[in-house]
Amino acid sequence: MGGDHGPPVVLPAVVRALAALPENVRFLLHGDEAAIHQGLTKHPEALARCEIRHAERVVGMDEKPAQALRRGKGTSMWSAVEAIREGQAAAAISAGNTGALMAISLLALRMVGELERPALVVGLPTPKGVTTFLDVGANVDCDAERLVEFAIMGEAFHRAAHGTPRPTVGLLNVGSEEMKGHEEVREANRILREGRIDLDYRGFVEGDDITRGTVDVVVTDGFSGNVALKSMEGVARFVYGELVSALTSGPLASLGAMLARPALRRFRDRLSPPPAAPLLGLNGIVMKCHGGATERDFAEAIQACVDLARSGFTSEIERNMRRLPDALAEHVAEGAPGETGAAAAPEGVQE
Amino acid sequence: MGGDHGPPVVLPAVVRALAALPENVRFLLHGDEAAIHQGLTKHPEALARCEIRHAERVVGMDEKPAQALRRGKGTSMWSAVEAIREGQAAAAISAGNTGALMAISLLALRMVGELERPALVVGLPTPKGVTTFLDVGANVDCDAERLVEFAIMGEAFHRAAHGTPRPTVGLLNVGSEEMKGHEEVREANRILREGRIDLDYRGFVEGDDITRGTVDVVVTDGFSGNVALKSMEGVARFVYGELVSALTSGPLASLGAMLARPALRRFRDRLSPPPAAPLLGLNGIVMKCHGGATERDFAEAIQACVDLARSGFTSEIERNMRRLPDALAEHVAEGAPGETGAAAAPEGVQE
Repeated sequence: MGGDHGPPVVLPAVVRALAALPENVRFLLHGDEAAIHQGLTKHPEALARCEIRHAERVVGMDEKPAQALRRGKGTSMWSAVEAIREGQAAAAISAGNTGALMAISLLALRMVGELERPALVVGLPTPKGVTTFLDVGANVDCDAERLVEFAIMGEAFHRAAHGTPRPTVGLLNVGSEEMKGHEEVREANRILREGRIDLDYRGFVEGDDITRGTVDVVVTDGFSGNVALKSMEGVARFVYGELVSALTSGPLASLGAMLARPALRRFRDRLSPPPAAPLLGLNGIVMKCHGGATERDFAEAIQACVDLARSGFTSEIERNMRRLPDALAEHVAEGAPGETGAAAAPEGVQE
Repeated sequence: MGGDHGPPVVLPAVVRALAALPENVRFLLHGDEAAIHQGLTKHPEALARCEIRHAERVVGMDEKPAQALRRGKGTSMWSAVEAIREGQAAAAISAGNTGALMAISLLALRMVGELERPALVVGLPTPKGVTTFLDVGANVDCDAERLVEFAIMGEAFHRAAHGTPRPTVGLLNVGSEEMKGHEEVREANRILREGRIDLDYRGFVEGDDITRGTVDVVVTDGFSGNVALKSMEGVARFVYGELVSALTSGPLASLGAMLARPALRRFRDRLSPPPAAPLLGLNGIVMKCHGGATERDFAEAIQACVDLARSGFTSEIERNMRRLPDALAEHVAEGAPGETGAAAAPEGVQE
């Protein structure tokens, strides 16, 4: 029911996604039963793989998280998240109110191990592949411990999503020297440098390293992350607009653009912003699709959600979380080796 | 002497800039006299408009600000800034160590009025013109009062640089609702909303508003600002690379690209990052050129520096600064009207 469009986008996206997904993938659709039923009447093959869970109410797009928690029971969002807790669903996806989705998920599913708060993560294209970037807006205030948690979650997510055996991790800063940045980022750097957490940590990176692919996982607080993500989306959109106007600035340029059209279309597709971001660190998979998502965006987000549900990323996070308390308690002390035996300082770490 | 290249880039840039500048613009060149002299022997017409000030030493690119202050006397950077204080120069420009340039400038020139710290500002292209964006890295920790100061400095700078009579101002945040963001940004929003400072303040903006041109001036802390600026530069570079590979992906696309080449070249020029950023709020004009600047970049930065020296932006800042103490002391009280009589809540401000 969520997002700018609701069922008219979500239902066609489900039909589209189902056509490409294996037979054993099925949907629970939470919301207005009549509207959902009507939206699927022309697609009996899709309807046969869906179960509709009627919900009287909807969480408003401008409700505060606390409000959503108080009066959330009986809403479609609550019902979708609850289905994970009850073991009826492997994952939930919503284009609704982000803060409410986070609050309801946190209450219903709880965090993995000792993790404090979920993080929103996106994958961004680079010449080499994909950079995993987090937090892009779930936590505006982050201390050093939060940043270290994001590193753990992001690394596990990247491995699960892209199959990289040992993803590299960087901490976003305003320069690469150790003295740069505010206290939180320097403290997080010290903790990660000590190598007590089993990560291939490469130190500070800067904003342009995100699209350069310098490291696999770029970690920052939710304020800077959200600002950077939206700024980058803005530039991509601006650049595409400028390109179109450059290529229609005269007859020769227009002819050239016509000849290059298929190449330019592939180029545009590669630049489109990620349609959805998972909330990392919960006992269960919750995916936030952006409010203005199109049918195609939402279908892609469903596919990503299924891929994630099949991967073992939650257990990856748990494995690393078990080392966090030791690492925080005593930065320099010798701690117990983890079960992988790979706790030695990894390549690239300069102590 | 500063930057990645030193005299081999700076001197040809001076020659290039002088050719386009009025006769009465002259240079003081601070640094190694022999090297500078040699670099200009082939350009007697340029040499005639330059005066060389020999400096034995140079501030290293990795020196900390405190170090640079202790042992900065006698360096080329110190000498350049000192020339402003002594009234011998209207502006200084350097591609050297940013932190050192800021510390030396602050010590030698002091801030205008009650301002606390300089801010680094850049202009970024939008479909409508230019967005003034600050702080892009001078201050990693910013409280609400700092953000309000940046709004005052940025607005005055935008008017001086672009001639807009009444630039609009927005505060960068992770959403447009009043409840969004951390305490510092919400507090700054409250102060600016009250309209006690003579600004056309439009409230919160998001990352993609920077290139959309939603407001003329976008204000943020130096951490988020630096991260956003570098992220945007990274995307622009990535996008251009992707475009080139799309346009060389086959014979038809390549032919198209050839026909569209002049348009694509104009497109690329429009995307190139700003070559320099002024340090705002000082009693004098100090311009930081980026370390990797090319001859052309540095020449453009010189031109921008001359334009700025001719504008009255320092007095613009002073005018608004006079209202700041009142506005901070009593957010809601009726205060004394400023000399322009334009202190009424401007259009677009929703109280």
